[in-house]
Amino acid sequence: MNDIKFTPIGIIHTPFAEQKGTPIQPHRGRGVKGTIEVFPQYADGLADLDGFSHIYLLFHLHRSDGFNLRVIPFLDDTERGVFATRAPRRPNPIGLSIVRLVKVEGVTLYIEDLDILDGTPLLDIKPYVPHFDDAEEFRIGWLEGRSERAADTDADGRFEP
Amino acid sequence: MNDIKFTPIGIIHTPFAEQKGTPIQPHRGRGVKGTIEVFPQYADGLADLDGFSHIYLLFHLHRSDGFNLRVIPFLDDTERGVFATRAPRRPNPIGLSIVRLVKVEGVTLYIEDLDILDGTPLLDIKPYVPHFDDAEEFRIGWLEGRSERAADTDADGRFEP
Repeated sequence: MNDIKFTPIGIIHTPFAEQKGTPIQPHRGRGVKGTIEVFPQYADGLADLDGFSHIYLLFHLHRSDGFNLRVIPFLDDTERGVFATRAPRRPNPIGLSIVRLVKVEGVTLYIEDLDILDGTPLLDIKPYVPHFDDAEEFRIGWLEGRSERAADTDADGRFEP
Repeated sequence: MNDIKFTPIGIIHTPFAEQKGTPIQPHRGRGVKGTIEVFPQYADGLADLDGFSHIYLLFHLHRSDGFNLRVIPFLDDTERGVFATRAPRRPNPIGLSIVRLVKVEGVTLYIEDLDILDGTPLLDIKPYVPHFDDAEEFRIGWLEGRSERAADTDADGRFEP
């Protein structure tokens, strides 16, 4: 299977210079402000984005070096399969966050509710449309009873190289 | 800025051989069944995934060739910036879907609610945890009043090469 090549479309700027102390999910990062500098050649692709209050960011977890198939995630003390976690040391280190889009000025996006390291290369932006379906029932596996704790937990650096 | 290389971790099998007729979002694909064949070297990473009812799939939009910064999306008749849409011809053609995980048998995942082409290379799996926050207010830009229509709309092939 051939490699797939992607090229950053911008850089994410945040207050978090290292993983330790970075919120482990945007919930915990509520109110944390940052910016995205989209490279000028992609400026036209930002049209109409300002109508959305929230966006998905897909980014390269550029500080992850190698991967582990079993990890002890934040919020837990048991090894879990990496695909059942958000741990950054993944076979393809792609990060996914939902952030609040405050405003767009030219190629600069002002964003909030961040759990992303400063200098992270941005791969894609997609509009976030809430999953409005009350009929859905969800199970959240090993996170059951733990997802609330995420609100008070910062990263401890366990996934640093 | 350097290229970033990813390698597929598996292949997604669905009933959709071509874009035309493929649901434009998982909502419309409700009940559509498929499987994921994860490559055996990643099997250990699937532990604990079966506790989750829904998962995020990140995949390579492998049939997209090149990109447009302005597109006329499904549900609309006006050009929009590509980052304000889910159109597949994106600078980095990475797809994102939330699907229902029915069961895991070895390296085979049985999934439902699909809007993905058959043979799509899988890049990552992440657990889906619903965004439970009633205090959040969302704006969905140009999709306002159109997202309901998505339930009755299939792709018409406009993004085929």
